[in-house]
Amino acid sequence: MDFTEATTVVPDGGRYAAAVAEGWDILGNANGGYLLAMAARAMADAAGRPDPVTITAHYLAPGRPGPVTIDPVVVKEGRTFTTVRASLASPERPLLELVGTFGDVADRDGMPERVDGGPPDLPSRQDCTPRDAPGEAPAFMSKVELLLHPDDRGFATGAKSGLPRMRGWFGWPDGSDVDTFGLLVAADAFPPTIFNTHLPVGWTPTVELTVHVRGRPAPGPLACSFTTRFVTGGFLEEDGEVWDATGRLVAQSRQLALLPRG
Amino acid sequence: MDFTEATTVVPDGGRYAAAVAEGWDILGNANGGYLLAMAARAMADAAGRPDPVTITAHYLAPGRPGPVTIDPVVVKEGRTFTTVRASLASPERPLLELVGTFGDVADRDGMPERVDGGPPDLPSRQDCTPRDAPGEAPAFMSKVELLLHPDDRGFATGAKSGLPRMRGWFGWPDGSDVDTFGLLVAADAFPPTIFNTHLPVGWTPTVELTVHVRGRPAPGPLACSFTTRFVTGGFLEEDGEVWDATGRLVAQSRQLALLPRG
Repeated sequence: MDFTEATTVVPDGGRYAAAVAEGWDILGNANGGYLLAMAARAMADAAGRPDPVTITAHYLAPGRPGPVTIDPVVVKEGRTFTTVRASLASPERPLLELVGTFGDVADRDGMPERVDGGPPDLPSRQDCTPRDAPGEAPAFMSKVELLLHPDDRGFATGAKSGLPRMRGWFGWPDGSDVDTFGLLVAADAFPPTIFNTHLPVGWTPTVELTVHVRGRPAPGPLACSFTTRFVTGGFLEEDGEVWDATGRLVAQSRQLALLPRG
Repeated sequence: MDFTEATTVVPDGGRYAAAVAEGWDILGNANGGYLLAMAARAMADAAGRPDPVTITAHYLAPGRPGPVTIDPVVVKEGRTFTTVRASLASPERPLLELVGTFGDVADRDGMPERVDGGPPDLPSRQDCTPRDAPGEAPAFMSKVELLLHPDDRGFATGAKSGLPRMRGWFGWPDGSDVDTFGLLVAADAFPPTIFNTHLPVGWTPTVELTVHVRGRPAPGPLACSFTTRFVTGGFLEEDGEVWDATGRLVAQSRQLALLPRG
């Protein structure tokens, strides 16, 4: 089931019905960016705006395949933006609590720009590498095309770089265009940065993820970069940048993840 | 009226009553970090947890002096953290929509750390400078002690550095300790980074502000740094770091601000 189908939301008397699809998970837990994108679709529909401009989710419980509901509430409808809060819940429990501001991200093209930085320096897609050996990939990795910079794949081969960094290409396996909701998946699809350090950490659950969408991506693969500067106080941040094929920053993300105890 | 008094929230049948105090404004608009701290106090009280761990506010309308209400709703009570959503509203309209996760930030001391970076290189407080000439400061500047790095005060003297950066010391005027709610004010108290660039921008309204609290500050002044890398698509981010007097990162922030047209 492709991204569009797997994030379809159906209006149902003020709420939206959806289903967490099979295969969008890592070890049984639905990918956080996928759940975010699903919620964002319902929130954008409720807002009557095409794009998430900035959206934050707090992750309350893991998502499993099966039905969920999303109940967006418009809290402010402005001239240019509409702000919506929502929760995404399974029949058993709330999974995500969200707030987002929606608008048209192409609306403000032509404003003054000042960019300090550029896309990550990636080898061609042919010279980047899937995360896992064939047959060993989590199901989620068949839903996205994620090709890692060879220098950042050491966690999988036992040759860690020591640097909390993940860079690579993101797209859909069928080559279709990534829209502004797909950017929310790109922002949480890469392996944790900390896997490439020598800290003994096997997983880092997301507490909170915020994505700022800066533009609608041009067709073509997205160059992504994720870094961590501060593992401290039992938490770490992951800062993400997503650049489109024309070299334009289309999304910036930050998540707060928990460093689990021993 | 000092910070503690100006952010007092009074439980009132599931809601909390508070008042935007006189003097916590810039040109009549209450400071965004101050409103965030006020809402966070009510949310933490509802959660029964001492500290904001990560909190996000979307700014819907400017806050004016006078009564407000905050209506926190606990959405998930976990073993270590409690997640709460809330809105902060004047009698006329909603001002902030929020979601936050609360806990005890000292709870996770002693976990592995890996820190890439350190406090900004600031001259002593004696060699830093208030934002404005005496008598010209916005009222808010009497509520905080904010001393700018001389290199970042060019916007006020006509000698802009050209770099979107603001660094300086933050504290309370009476020298009292800054708690984890005060960190939320520190995260939004400095002049916009973009003032030091040559872009013709007079104000940058905050759309969204997220603060991650990494620790309870030690007594003493806080060294703060704010930078912007991407002015693009009609928006800019401001990334903040707040370091305590022992050289420990105590908060990290990011806001999305709007680049107003012409």
